[in-house]
Amino acid sequence: MTPQSTGSWHRKHLLDIESLSAAEIQVVHDTARVFKSVGERAIKKVPALRGKTVVNLFIEPSTRTRISFELAAMRLTADVINFTAEASSLKKGETLKDTARNLEALNADIIIIRHSAAGAPHFLSRILRGSVVNAGDGAHEHPTQALLDTFTIREKKGHVAGLNVTILGDILYSRVARSNIRALLKLGANVTLCGPSTLVPRVFEELGCRVSHNVDEAIAEADVINLLRIQHERQRKTMFPSIGEYTNLFGLTKERFARIRPDALIMHPGPINRGVEINSEVADCDRSVVLEQVTNGLAVRMAVLFLVNGGKGPQELGG
Amino acid sequence: MTPQSTGSWHRKHLLDIESLSAAEIQVVHDTARVFKSVGERAIKKVPALRGKTVVNLFIEPSTRTRISFELAAMRLTADVINFTAEASSLKKGETLKDTARNLEALNADIIIIRHSAAGAPHFLSRILRGSVVNAGDGAHEHPTQALLDTFTIREKKGHVAGLNVTILGDILYSRVARSNIRALLKLGANVTLCGPSTLVPRVFEELGCRVSHNVDEAIAEADVINLLRIQHERQRKTMFPSIGEYTNLFGLTKERFARIRPDALIMHPGPINRGVEINSEVADCDRSVVLEQVTNGLAVRMAVLFLVNGGKGPQELGG
Amino acid sequence: MTPQSTGSWHRKHLLDIESLSAAEIQVVHDTARVFKSVGERAIKKVPALRGKTVVNLFIEPSTRTRISFELAAMRLTADVINFTAEASSLKKGETLKDTARNLEALNADIIIIRHSAAGAPHFLSRILRGSVVNAGDGAHEHPTQALLDTFTIREKKGHVAGLNVTILGDILYSRVARSNIRALLKLGANVTLCGPSTLVPRVFEELGCRVSHNVDEAIAEADVINLLRIQHERQRKTMFPSIGEYTNLFGLTKERFARIRPDALIMHPGPINRGVEINSEVADCDRSVVLEQVTNGLAVRMAVLFLVNGGKGPQELGG
Repeated sequence: MTPQSTGSWHRKHLLDIESLSAAEIQVVHDTARVFKSVGERAIKKVPALRGKTVVNLFIEPSTRTRISFELAAMRLTADVINFTAEASSLKKGETLKDTARNLEALNADIIIIRHSAAGAPHFLSRILRGSVVNAGDGAHEHPTQALLDTFTIREKKGHVAGLNVTILGDILYSRVARSNIRALLKLGANVTLCGPSTLVPRVFEELGCRVSHNVDEAIAEADVINLLRIQHERQRKTMFPSIGEYTNLFGLTKERFARIRPDALIMHPGPINRGVEINSEVADCDRSVVLEQVTNGLAVRMAVLFLVNGGKGPQELGG
Repeated sequence: MTPQSTGSWHRKHLLDIESLSAAEIQVVHDTARVFKSVGERAIKKVPALRGKTVVNLFIEPSTRTRISFELAAMRLTADVINFTAEASSLKKGETLKDTARNLEALNADIIIIRHSAAGAPHFLSRILRGSVVNAGDGAHEHPTQALLDTFTIREKKGHVAGLNVTILGDILYSRVARSNIRALLKLGANVTLCGPSTLVPRVFEELGCRVSHNVDEAIAEADVINLLRIQHERQRKTMFPSIGEYTNLFGLTKERFARIRPDALIMHPGPINRGVEINSEVADCDRSVVLEQVTNGLAVRMAVLFLVNGGKGPQELGG
Repeated sequence: MTPQSTGSWHRKHLLDIESLSAAEIQVVHDTARVFKSVGERAIKKVPALRGKTVVNLFIEPSTRTRISFELAAMRLTADVINFTAEASSLKKGETLKDTARNLEALNADIIIIRHSAAGAPHFLSRILRGSVVNAGDGAHEHPTQALLDTFTIREKKGHVAGLNVTILGDILYSRVARSNIRALLKLGANVTLCGPSTLVPRVFEELGCRVSHNVDEAIAEADVINLLRIQHERQRKTMFPSIGEYTNLFGLTKERFARIRPDALIMHPGPINRGVEINSEVADCDRSVVLEQVTNGLAVRMAVLFLVNGGKGPQELGG
């Protein structure tokens, strides 16, 4: 892909996709592109955040996202502290506000927060002096996931505008879907949402998306198919079919795979459920970019940490 | 505050406040003052412990203290290893001695230990070649907490000698209280202890403290009020009133706050129980230095790690 | 000991002892000898793996081995990520393959794996682009333990060839025994295996070992006695005597200790069960090298990480 941004970054926080402009998303992408090349060098490290302190405040468990942010901070030569707790253990008289302000009192420069409550990062951004990065808040947003997904699309397709992107799964309760919808629309993609009617209500049409409850129709013309993870243990029983039924109705089976466009990208935020939302062979085929999403996630998170800490854009990196 | 120490540090361990002289406490304070300024720089790091190995051996859980020591070691450019275990899991035939000697065999330079048994750090200091730092041992001592509390008082008031300091709460079983009492008396403060009579016995008068069971009287002339954390889950039921009753009798309510000296400092080792030992608004008022204690704790722990590793005092730091 | 190797290292992985030649084992030893001296310096760090990413993928818990590898990587200036999970938690539709490939997608250079399933490291070595180091796989092998044990013997005795080495305990299910047997035989030692007949079957004679069920006879002429850890909680009840009975029949008691060779080395992979497989005083006597094994383990693991990452041998280290 070629750099498209001429803008520069001026935000102290990354709280959501909703408030970003298309130009800002492109600054993140262009910066991530430079950092991705760092990961391919013999010495995968730059001193951009040397002597800075980054706190991973994960009040909802997520080993994978935590590790991605941790390694992103290490590659920028920052010091990283992990603070992991169940929301329940914070309730003994201490508030999220107190926890966050205590961490900030250790001169933390950036606090990365994952929380089961929507809005937690926005709340922290109003009370802390440091930068706040949203690593997923309830069913609200997961902005770095959308930034890495759109980065991957741009990298593979050269552009996002005009592409047909189908997101498949439990849209209603998915922060990944919510952030992706916003980023894709801002960048000019045509977004189709598909899944059980209980989980993909018509109201999403108001955002500018197409809603479909027929997966075969929804994926036929897709340039990109983004599959959401089915979370057995968390899925709302009354709104959700059985696993076997889901696979039959909405899974990317080999039969469905045979009918999609030959150049369609297959994406998934991981970890995948082989044989549930995606057939195992399809997950490993050469059109699946699941592992490249992981690699790109690290680069995008390096870019985000660099930018919220005062970086302006890729031009500062000689990239 | 102005530097008061002309002495230098010669100890290999920090085991307790009891064995320190006032001059030694002041060396820690003066060294911490230099390290505090490191935390305010763009690059919050010095190479003082580069290539040294620091082990956090926490046999009693404490995320906050562990993180404070971990970050202190990182800012000194040491390598830090966290070894966290429940005392119970060490009992399968392996002793604390074996665990500690195994960690030392990894060429650990400093072992920071928190343990539910009083005396554990002293025991380790007799069998290990490396330095031992006490991060809290049973109901015995928590020396870095007292060093950071007195550092904070000196910073805010310019001196400690002659000040009226009231410590409020469960004194009998508190290692924070015990270390603070010793440090404050050594530095010449007038110490008043206050709380339920079951938890603040008259025997403390023998140490040179004043004992009071009337909170209004105890805080009226205080220059500093240090509130201990009420630990619901651990508090001895037969000796302790209900939470609501405690707040009524000994909490720093808005009413009591209105009657204290206008320049009194309000301190708390954290995490606070809003609405229990302290009113929520009082905790956030401009006379509360709770968050500065956290910042100072990091600086004091950097100083302690630097000094036990062979540092003599602030003069070596060009500070 | 004097360097014996003239060879150099060409392997990308360390999967087992079985496939190594005696010359390769000696390259590891000679490299470890140089790294051991790093641990004795004031600055215990070399830049050999600067900017490299090492992942500790521990699907079976082991704090000690994990810390040894973590510190080894830190001393080589690598960035280290710990990924610890129960095998059970990986079963929700995600395979070990997916987990490992996700970690590799973060540009991991070396993946250190401990897993309860024999063969897991070999499997990963076939699907990953990076290097794989086996930190213990089921009852199969634990190669770094055997490398550090034979390193310790060479260091103390000057050579391994021709020595009488007795391994005592549950041989049948021990990966430590299995790797040690292979390393010792390759280096020319005379290996005696001893323990309950249910756990030390005659079939081991086919490997070239002597099998004995009489501990007094087995240790009488031993130059080295390597005691395996009795794991109460895991030991197979139907094949294993009671703890007291084991100590009587196979423990290294004071009485037995009095009858061994005066220059016999006593080894144990740790953590020891004082009073079970070894008498407490014997464990601490000057012929016990248990703690030196820990120190040497760190040096050996530094050597292994250095070599699998492309190091050829000690000659590159100016050692």
